[in-house]
Amino acid sequence: MPWTIDDLDTPAVLVDLDRVEANLARAQAYADAHGLRLRPHIKTHKIPALARRQMELGAVGITCQKLGEAEVMADEGLDDILLTFNLLGAAKMRRLVDLARRVRLGVTADNAVVAGELAQAMDEAGLTLPVLVECDTGGERCGVQTPEEAVELAKLIDGLPGLHFLGLMTYPAKGRTAETAAWLEAAVAALAAGGLEPEVVSTGGTPDLYRAHEVKAATEHRPGTYIYSDRYQAQQGVGTLDDCALRILSTVVSRPSDGRAILDAGSKTLSSDTLGLEGFGHILEYPQLLLAKFSEEHGHVDCSASNARPRIGERVTILPNHACVVSNLHDVVYGVRGDRVERAFRVEARGRVQ
Amino acid sequence: MPWTIDDLDTPAVLVDLDRVEANLARAQAYADAHGLRLRPHIKTHKIPALARRQMELGAVGITCQKLGEAEVMADEGLDDILLTFNLLGAAKMRRLVDLARRVRLGVTADNAVVAGELAQAMDEAGLTLPVLVECDTGGERCGVQTPEEAVELAKLIDGLPGLHFLGLMTYPAKGRTAETAAWLEAAVAALAAGGLEPEVVSTGGTPDLYRAHEVKAATEHRPGTYIYSDRYQAQQGVGTLDDCALRILSTVVSRPSDGRAILDAGSKTLSSDTLGLEGFGHILEYPQLLLAKFSEEHGHVDCSASNARPRIGERVTILPNHACVVSNLHDVVYGVRGDRVERAFRVEARGRVQ
Repeated sequence: MPWTIDDLDTPAVLVDLDRVEANLARAQAYADAHGLRLRPHIKTHKIPALARRQMELGAVGITCQKLGEAEVMADEGLDDILLTFNLLGAAKMRRLVDLARRVRLGVTADNAVVAGELAQAMDEAGLTLPVLVECDTGGERCGVQTPEEAVELAKLIDGLPGLHFLGLMTYPAKGRTAETAAWLEAAVAALAAGGLEPEVVSTGGTPDLYRAHEVKAATEHRPGTYIYSDRYQAQQGVGTLDDCALRILSTVVSRPSDGRAILDAGSKTLSSDTLGLEGFGHILEYPQLLLAKFSEEHGHVDCSASNARPRIGERVTILPNHACVVSNLHDVVYGVRGDRVERAFRVEARGRVQ
Repeated sequence: MPWTIDDLDTPAVLVDLDRVEANLARAQAYADAHGLRLRPHIKTHKIPALARRQMELGAVGITCQKLGEAEVMADEGLDDILLTFNLLGAAKMRRLVDLARRVRLGVTADNAVVAGELAQAMDEAGLTLPVLVECDTGGERCGVQTPEEAVELAKLIDGLPGLHFLGLMTYPAKGRTAETAAWLEAAVAALAAGGLEPEVVSTGGTPDLYRAHEVKAATEHRPGTYIYSDRYQAQQGVGTLDDCALRILSTVVSRPSDGRAILDAGSKTLSSDTLGLEGFGHILEYPQLLLAKFSEEHGHVDCSASNARPRIGERVTILPNHACVVSNLHDVVYGVRGDRVERAFRVEARGRVQ
């Protein structure tokens, strides 16, 4: 007898493997068609087996946000890793040196303090670490603020022992592809004027993944959410709700009043991220019902807009607003095809905050 | 050489054990003074050692929201557990029977479907399970809607094999103690008219913990957050910011512009819960800085309101808006007294969604 979704207790996180394959193939084909290298960000799934699948399909390496994630991935055979987070402190430097000894590793930096610590650690270990200068091309998070600052930091890195200036990296602002392209083009020109040539110019993000080729200077792109997609990405026009591979199976545990249903999945299962959307998720079987409110363990459903209302004990399927944060809440997700449960995946890199 | 906070890498979750002791002692003294039994909700800490400490100080038992949490606590010697969540399905019934065989267990129910499943499972196992009728006294989550419905469900439970009607339970609406008191008083009177006497009337919540005695019908209270407190509880007047025992140690990793600092702690470390507060947490060392935005791994600090601004590499301490959700994000938290790290606690019941 096959193991089916009906055999799973709730709440449970399902990952539809056919949809995963389709999402990965679409992005890889796009990247190949445009001569862009794909370096998927594993923050979305945090599962080594899925990272390996991304590599099999043509990714040039993976991206991690935390050293702890990179260590897990390295343990599982992923051997080309970009760490896109400013690293500081003796403990992290020790771990970084260990990691640089066993995989092809690159990092980013947006300031001289970080570059200095990296250089000292690598030089003392007799290693040379490739570094991308993180650029704030409009995302207003980390990153040097102007192409001139990028050149200044690149020159500093280029001159430090233990470091190799590899190029530029940005996490671009959504919907501002033209500005990103202009910023990076100006930076590449300014670098050239200073005698430096970036080997890698790395952009990222799923919402504008299919416009990545419009950033002419870019050599690689680091999409994360595209593997699972979610309600937010569908709203942004990256596929449809039907492309969402990550779903939460949940049971209706209470119908306290005619207009209210309570699910056994709340913010501990889906997070309280709304990303500006109405409601905390989309209920596939009852698209007119509003997932109006979350307690940690309760999903509050407003049934007032629909005559079709679920009964106590009924199971429903929720598409989350934001897939990445769901991965981080769960130790295990279930790989399914149709109704069949193919395997359980341990979310091995979840919770690695350092 | 003692292990100190300076030896910890960041981000790290600190639990100040002196503050924990003070918070626990204050609540227990209050409950004792008013003849209320305390049955702490472990959802806030999810750590067996802290649950045992709550018992040592006088709690009559603990509350869990999930069967998986209760199983972890039972494994660690906690032997009086109330499960305040409607349980459904064959898998949960099997686990519940196993648990009922090894600890003193009570559950709640707010509908006949749940009561029926519980009764069948317990009767088949030759057990009798105490059940509280969950009442919606204004919180608008689960619960029967009227005292009359409470009586109806109580009678059903009283008549079912395998179940024992134990009393009433509510998770009351914040700030509506008088309504909660009136609702429960009416329900107790209606039960009495029907020949039923509740042995337990259980209320909950930290915001109104110190008004629990105003609910005259209540025999026990189930506070959760009080052990750690958080920014939200302080805003509600339950202690002050100084009473917050759970803190996040974080490093400034970037100062991209004069008005912006970026921390190595974002929604993966603190959650994106605001609970209606401004900002995603309170920075102890820089109370005028606004933790304005979270990415998963980045905390975006708006420095514009202050001349005192942190430098790259500096460590800061964040009080979270909501402590419970922080516990669920971390495998380990550090018990500290002053600057000394006394021990690491595994958050053993985290992530138990089923």
